[in-house]
Amino acid sequence: MIEPKTLKGFRDFLPAEARKRQYLTNALKEVFELYGFEPLETPALEYDEILTGKYGDEGEKLMYRFVDKGERKVAMRYDQTVPLARVVGQYKNSLPLPFKRYQMQTVWRAENTQKGRFREFLQSDIDTVGVDTALSDAETILVAVRALDRLGFTKFKVLINDRNIFTNLVAKNVATEEKLPAVIRSVDKLKKIGREKVIDEIAARGFSNTEATAALEAVELAEKTERIQEIMNLLKEFGVDEDKYQFEPTLARGLDYYTGLIFEVEVEGYDAGSVLGGGRYNELIGSFSNDPIPAVGFAFGFDRTIEALEALNLFPDAVKVAATKVLVTVFNKESLAYSIETANYLRTNNINTELYENPEDKLDKQLKFADKKGIRFAIIAGPEEIKTKTYTLKDLRTGKQEIVKKEDLKNVLI
Amino acid sequence: MIEPKTLKGFRDFLPAEARKRQYLTNALKEVFELYGFEPLETPALEYDEILTGKYGDEGEKLMYRFVDKGERKVAMRYDQTVPLARVVGQYKNSLPLPFKRYQMQTVWRAENTQKGRFREFLQSDIDTVGVDTALSDAETILVAVRALDRLGFTKFKVLINDRNIFTNLVAKNVATEEKLPAVIRSVDKLKKIGREKVIDEIAARGFSNTEATAALEAVELAEKTERIQEIMNLLKEFGVDEDKYQFEPTLARGLDYYTGLIFEVEVEGYDAGSVLGGGRYNELIGSFSNDPIPAVGFAFGFDRTIEALEALNLFPDAVKVAATKVLVTVFNKESLAYSIETANYLRTNNINTELYENPEDKLDKQLKFADKKGIRFAIIAGPEEIKTKTYTLKDLRTGKQEIVKKEDLKNVLI
Repeated sequence: MIEPKTLKGFRDFLPAEARKRQYLTNALKEVFELYGFEPLETPALEYDEILTGKYGDEGEKLMYRFVDKGERKVAMRYDQTVPLARVVGQYKNSLPLPFKRYQMQTVWRAENTQKGRFREFLQSDIDTVGVDTALSDAETILVAVRALDRLGFTKFKVLINDRNIFTNLVAKNVATEEKLPAVIRSVDKLKKIGREKVIDEIAARGFSNTEATAALEAVELAEKTERIQEIMNLLKEFGVDEDKYQFEPTLARGLDYYTGLIFEVEVEGYDAGSVLGGGRYNELIGSFSNDPIPAVGFAFGFDRTIEALEALNLFPDAVKVAATKVLVTVFNKESLAYSIETANYLRTNNINTELYENPEDKLDKQLKFADKKGIRFAIIAGPEEIKTKTYTLKDLRTGKQEIVKKEDLKNVLI
Repeated sequence: MIEPKTLKGFRDFLPAEARKRQYLTNALKEVFELYGFEPLETPALEYDEILTGKYGDEGEKLMYRFVDKGERKVAMRYDQTVPLARVVGQYKNSLPLPFKRYQMQTVWRAENTQKGRFREFLQSDIDTVGVDTALSDAETILVAVRALDRLGFTKFKVLINDRNIFTNLVAKNVATEEKLPAVIRSVDKLKKIGREKVIDEIAARGFSNTEATAALEAVELAEKTERIQEIMNLLKEFGVDEDKYQFEPTLARGLDYYTGLIFEVEVEGYDAGSVLGGGRYNELIGSFSNDPIPAVGFAFGFDRTIEALEALNLFPDAVKVAATKVLVTVFNKESLAYSIETANYLRTNNINTELYENPEDKLDKQLKFADKKGIRFAIIAGPEEIKTKTYTLKDLRTGKQEIVKKEDLKNVLI
């Protein structure tokens, strides 16, 4: 016998976990569509050359790549942004811009799983392609806020910054263009490692300690850009509570490709990192088109959001129990017809119903099964019940049972 | 510039197509849960040894396999049945049986794409693991029927057979055990290639022409097994119309692993093959456990079902247009606040709303954009409208436009 096991970093989602994931994807889909985003799906495999050179050295190392049976070099989806860029290039003649799409698909990265990272995980993105306005920036943040509202998060903060605050360091002669990415990546760690270590890190990239301190201070003391001010004014008009967002000049975000707005969301009571991050990237999308095409968007950290919902106990009760509302037990072969009639009735009334499929199992075993599965109610329909045309309805959470008539069954269970 | 293109057999689903797919998965999920099935997700990659030897020679050839960065031999999901078997073996101590699960994930097969087949496609399965009764067989068929009902198909037929009708050929000395799979695979083609060619094919596997004819006739004239009779009686009790199913002794189904009930569904008006097929397989699931574990289930051909829905015009109107119900246009910078207020109002009332994000574009361009995107309504909110606190609502399908007040907006658009 082959030992049944999964690859490191890959997960099975049994019903209880799968239900949570469905809840989150459905809630996000609802909000994304409310704000005018439409669904997109792209393949799991792309030509290697489509993805190559898009994710930096780190990404090249982590990508799943292989040669297929037709000797084509292929790579597995690493994110949803490069596939989006390809789609925009490939269908540009038929795709009306601005293209507002959401995408929720699995991506694969050969991460070091010891960090608690997974090699297969869901991404949940929205992006608006083809427009470069403060309005589109503001609406992107708005959708993030409304999605978090919808999920029941009440205490969270959107940290907002402009990549130009870093780019300006070059104009101010605080950093050179070549060294800028290193400064950004160091400042990105400010919260994790603290000021001193950030200064050390910047210094290690070829700055004196004084220069490194000056660079960090220049960032810390930077003022809002005009664009950020405009975005914040619009957020107010959109009715977003002012305590939900703030300008944070040290917010850096790791990715190289941002060109303007960057933002992240922190949730109070969940400290494992931001649940969501994004920004404007006006150069990436154009790589498969002949012209540059501006874009702005964000990605939910799906697993982190699940964890945060868990930590703050925000999953609705319906997600915590089986989707199946009731188990119709089968007393014996003779009473099967009555149980079938009951299951038919419940299903016709849109009540998720499992009919116990082995009439030879004892009632006790059937009830234990329902309980173990997380099904809340069980219906007992034996000879006594058949005689009186009733049912014994057992609430497996409280242990209480009552005799009910067919027409009342529906009311109790809905 | 790198040419943006997809791999042969792999597809992008732009919004119009993605919406259809969402509609189908949601409808199926609804029905599956109504009948007591719970969701399961498994990884895209499995250890190669988990999948090896499960799909016959054909499967081995078509599987996507490679060596990952940790020198592990891995393979991409080829179907959802072997992963289910692994899950049952892996979690057997905590998984209550019968385990009724549905699974809707992508699978990958390096098929010859010239046959109109895809290399990446969605499967949509239900399976009941751990019970071997006519009742579980009947409920499996019942779910198939109810799913097709739910999708709006009215003229379809479930063809039902028992693999034992073929196994019995050995007892009758019409075939030997070794030659039986070849006979099954030949009879499986009866509809496609006709009687004569099936007889030729059987003969080619080491039978005389008389023996081959006798084998086919033995199948054609076979009578219902007791189990099939029992299943059909139960379907009647479940209230399935008797013209929706029939015993069909020549139904063979290609897969080796079936051990009892087999069935397929044909839809009138769609001739490209069965949209759904399944059966009982009591030996496969045990391959990762120490005991044999019975199972029964079916898989929807997702792409074929989409095609059949299309062919019979069964997609609801809501799926045919954009998920976005209305575009709020922006007349100019000065009227932006009024447009934002409008978008806020509509979204608060759960109306999927896109706000045009470039206030500098001409109104005409904005209206054309809405039309091209398949958004049905556009709201014009310029200086005139602001003065009178009204809106011009344009129906882009009919071209008609009317002046409405804010509170009427909601009623027209819901």
